[in-house]
Amino acid sequence: MTDFSKTRSFFYLPEGTTYLDGNSLGPLPLSARERVDRLMREEWGQLLIKGWNQAGWMTMPRRIGDRVGKLIGAAPGTVVMGDTLSIKVYQALASALELVPERKVILSDSGNFPSDLYMAHGLLGSLGKGHTLKIVEPEEVETAIDETVAVLMLTEVDYRTGRLHDMKALTRKAHSLGVVTLWDLAHSAGALPVDLAEAEADFAVGCTYKYLNGGPGAPAFIYVTPRYADKVRPALSGWLGHEQPFAFDLSYRPGGGIDRMRVGTPPILGLAALDAALDAWEDVDMQDVRRQSIRLCDLFVTEVERRCPMLELGSPRDGRKRGSQISFLHPEGYAIMQALISRGVIGDFRAPNAIRFGFTPLYIGEADVLRATDVLEDIMTNRLWDSAEYKQRALVT
Amino acid sequence: MTDFSKTRSFFYLPEGTTYLDGNSLGPLPLSARERVDRLMREEWGQLLIKGWNQAGWMTMPRRIGDRVGKLIGAAPGTVVMGDTLSIKVYQALASALELVPERKVILSDSGNFPSDLYMAHGLLGSLGKGHTLKIVEPEEVETAIDETVAVLMLTEVDYRTGRLHDMKALTRKAHSLGVVTLWDLAHSAGALPVDLAEAEADFAVGCTYKYLNGGPGAPAFIYVTPRYADKVRPALSGWLGHEQPFAFDLSYRPGGGIDRMRVGTPPILGLAALDAALDAWEDVDMQDVRRQSIRLCDLFVTEVERRCPMLELGSPRDGRKRGSQISFLHPEGYAIMQALISRGVIGDFRAPNAIRFGFTPLYIGEADVLRATDVLEDIMTNRLWDSAEYKQRALVT
Repeated sequence: MTDFSKTRSFFYLPEGTTYLDGNSLGPLPLSARERVDRLMREEWGQLLIKGWNQAGWMTMPRRIGDRVGKLIGAAPGTVVMGDTLSIKVYQALASALELVPERKVILSDSGNFPSDLYMAHGLLGSLGKGHTLKIVEPEEVETAIDETVAVLMLTEVDYRTGRLHDMKALTRKAHSLGVVTLWDLAHSAGALPVDLAEAEADFAVGCTYKYLNGGPGAPAFIYVTPRYADKVRPALSGWLGHEQPFAFDLSYRPGGGIDRMRVGTPPILGLAALDAALDAWEDVDMQDVRRQSIRLCDLFVTEVERRCPMLELGSPRDGRKRGSQISFLHPEGYAIMQALISRGVIGDFRAPNAIRFGFTPLYIGEADVLRATDVLEDIMTNRLWDSAEYKQRALVT
Repeated sequence: MTDFSKTRSFFYLPEGTTYLDGNSLGPLPLSARERVDRLMREEWGQLLIKGWNQAGWMTMPRRIGDRVGKLIGAAPGTVVMGDTLSIKVYQALASALELVPERKVILSDSGNFPSDLYMAHGLLGSLGKGHTLKIVEPEEVETAIDETVAVLMLTEVDYRTGRLHDMKALTRKAHSLGVVTLWDLAHSAGALPVDLAEAEADFAVGCTYKYLNGGPGAPAFIYVTPRYADKVRPALSGWLGHEQPFAFDLSYRPGGGIDRMRVGTPPILGLAALDAALDAWEDVDMQDVRRQSIRLCDLFVTEVERRCPMLELGSPRDGRKRGSQISFLHPEGYAIMQALISRGVIGDFRAPNAIRFGFTPLYIGEADVLRATDVLEDIMTNRLWDSAEYKQRALVT
């Protein structure tokens, strides 16, 4: 049984704040601060260039990839860290398309994170080989999978609504029609049980600054099924994906397996923070996280609907059909969220009208949910959001 | 006049170490440690998601890009930070090729850093449009520029020998024949005066963990001339390069100018360390750095040649024709460098036979050069390198 009071003590949470935005940026793990400071002082400071060997910097992308892999049902040696999620989408998609060169359709949905669609668009603009990006509604995905589709590219959990795709069923259907799958786990990794091996997913990518608490701009990950790992061409063929990076050959020979998905020099500060953050998961059972997440989300939905009838639920009501977040819709969503934040309840806003709350059992409990609903009720009942100061849009929403 | 004793006090240098590898990884700036710890504690810890607005995280890639820009002759608003150098090479090359769609040759040289060539190779593999990557010897570049060439892609300073290309002359010739230029400044930025605007360079990229001391895996930069910035298609079209990232549109519209070269969520820890590291350059005149760098390199060459006749100079003898590093060649280079490192003189080895030393006036002076030559003389004269322990190859050389 996971001890959530123990996991909570792992994080720094500011006094007076109810943090329901760990689905966007996880809070600071206390050990990450220590780990990064040690890196600066003892590794970069003392070892200098020798840190690449002696402090194991060069192998961090694989070692930490294996740690992330444990949380998403990926065998050791199938996940590697690096770059950003957008870059990893591009890399995976470029490789996936080449596995089915005779097909020209990438199928995605309108619930995919826009950057995934933008990266696909950018790749197709370079290829100029007549591919098209077909975007359907989330509920139409299953029927839209057919033998014209090269790659099915989806985000498992919708960033806006929390709607959860059935990865296993969609992958099975895709494979039955010769379609390669690419799953974005941005809102899945650390949020709910994921089993890439069991689902037989082909490619998966994700970020680590959300439920994995790696810090702002923490490195991304990429998974390639062992069926393809030694076969795919890494379009982003950087030196650290070379079979022998330090031979400095003029021609590229891909490294074995997942190593070939490495690109450039890895971001060691970010990797160190993430490495420390992953310690929080050591004694955690993801099934416990899932149960508690559904319980907290259900409680929030029940309380908000009872107390704030002017808000419309924007997430699936059935806990099994969503990730670990809840959205409510309101035309003044932006101002409502600003009013919440000014009272220490931090969620976020997603255009055009969603206020979004992430529920992260590692450090959020029932008392937090009830405090958030109290504040939200006050704001809605007394129209406290209706103030010019809350309507001024910031750069980042 | 630059005060190099002042700049030296900016860095932590371990006792007993003579660090001649700042061309590979710059040492720890003391303020970077403080800056990153403050980021962890006060920004990530206290502000959480609000850090993106309130701590200015979202604008760091542009703000720091302008700081780097000052060191390479790039006007404000023409440089942006992000990703790795390999990714930035890919991004710049993809954009550059589309400016001259009718031409099919990328011209580079054997002195380019292999990852640049690998990334070009990877891009061409995706394009499948009949492009070829033509690699000539460094001294043949000028005559190889002709009207068949789409893009001239060079690293200004050869990572192995330190040989310096004449950026201005080669760019001028390239332009006279309709060729777009892409300059890699990995071994130039912070090493010698660079004036991208004066040279009329089209694209430039570089890393910041060498002479700019940003730390292991620090973010890269990309420059696009204002002539093209609003015109190029960013093949890596991520959400932060979108005109309105937080509108979450399903379709991509590139941001204005250099903003479109942003891709995914920026690596804030790495950017914060780099930001602090750049403070070292505030009162530094790059012409002073250049003069002192040539003086130190010349001293090293003179002393080593006098005392170690068995080593062959692998760098240009004329200081004006090289960057800020010196290589010597020897078949046992690897073991020689290991012996040096074991005695606290840190340089590095570049296959097949180069021992490489970087001279970085911000924190290296004449006494360091003389100490290094003393140790090297002892190792060479007494064949101290000839030991099994020094011949065992490490992962990173």
